[in-house]
Amino acid sequence: MTRWPLPEYMQLALAQAREAADSGEVPIGAVIVRDGKVIATGRNGPRERHDPTSHAEIEAIRTAAQILGNERLEGCELWVTLEPCAMCAGAISHARIARLYYAAPDPKGGAVEHGARVFEHSQCLHRPEVYSGMGEAEAAEMLRAFFRDRR
Amino acid sequence: MTRWPLPEYMQLALAQAREAADSGEVPIGAVIVRDGKVIATGRNGPRERHDPTSHAEIEAIRTAAQILGNERLEGCELWVTLEPCAMCAGAISHARIARLYYAAPDPKGGAVEHGARVFEHSQCLHRPEVYSGMGEAEAAEMLRAFFRDRR
Repeated sequence: MTRWPLPEYMQLALAQAREAADSGEVPIGAVIVRDGKVIATGRNGPRERHDPTSHAEIEAIRTAAQILGNERLEGCELWVTLEPCAMCAGAISHARIARLYYAAPDPKGGAVEHGARVFEHSQCLHRPEVYSGMGEAEAAEMLRAFFRDRR
Repeated sequence: MTRWPLPEYMQLALAQAREAADSGEVPIGAVIVRDGKVIATGRNGPRERHDPTSHAEIEAIRTAAQILGNERLEGCELWVTLEPCAMCAGAISHARIARLYYAAPDPKGGAVEHGARVFEHSQCLHRPEVYSGMGEAEAAEMLRAFFRDRR
C-alpha cells in the first residue's frame, strides 16, 4: 500500500514539532505560507523561552508579521500540527490568516472544533477557512510518545 | 460629591492606555502586580510593532514572565482597561494569572463575559478570579474619544 504523501507544509510543521520535542517542549509545530512559499516557522517553546504565549502558531505569526512589516497576514496560510487553543485561534483571527490547516484535533485544549470554538461567535471579526486531518496520525503519535517518555 | 478613587493599579493601566492613544494605537493598557508590587506594564501596539499579538495583556504577560524567569505567573494579578479578547483570555489562563481585574466590558471583542467566554469551558485548565467595572467610565471614554477623533 502506498500512503498518500503529506503536503510539504505539514511535513515542515511536523519537523518543527520534532525540534520542540528535542528541546523538551511539547511537540507542536507551525509554518506560514504565502503564495506557495514558506515565510515563517514556529514551534512550541514556553518553558525554555519563559513565555506562556510561546505556542507554535504565535511564534510563526509574530515572525511572519515582522518579515512582512505588517500586523495583518492577508493571503497567508497557517499549517499547524494540533488544533489551535483559544489564544492561538484569537491570534489567527487578529492576523487575518486566510486558511488554517491543522493535523490533529485537540479535545482537551483545542478551541476551533472544541471548547470555546473561537471562530463560531458573531464577535469573531475574521474567520479563516479551516481544513483538518492531514498528518493527524503523525502529529498525535509524536505527542503520545512525548508524554509516554515523560511519565 | 467625592468620587471613590480608582485603585492605583487601574490608574496605571489607564495611563498605559493613554500612552497607546498618544502613539496612534487603540487605547488599552495593562499592569501585572505581584505581592502588591507592579512587576510589568503593557499597552496595545500591533500597528507600530507589526505584531497582531501585541495587545496590552500579552505585552504585560510576556514582560512579567521574562522578569520572573518563569512562564507561569502564579500569584499574579492582571489589571487591564478592557475585557480581554479570546487571545488574551487564553494567554491569561496559560500564564496562571490568579486574579483578573478589567475596567470596561467589550461586547464586540470581549471573550470573558461575551462571545467565546474562554474561562467558562471545561477545557479551560486555569480560571482566574474575575472582577470588573472599576474604571469602566474612564476606560470607555478614552476608547470613544480615540475612535471619534479618527473619524
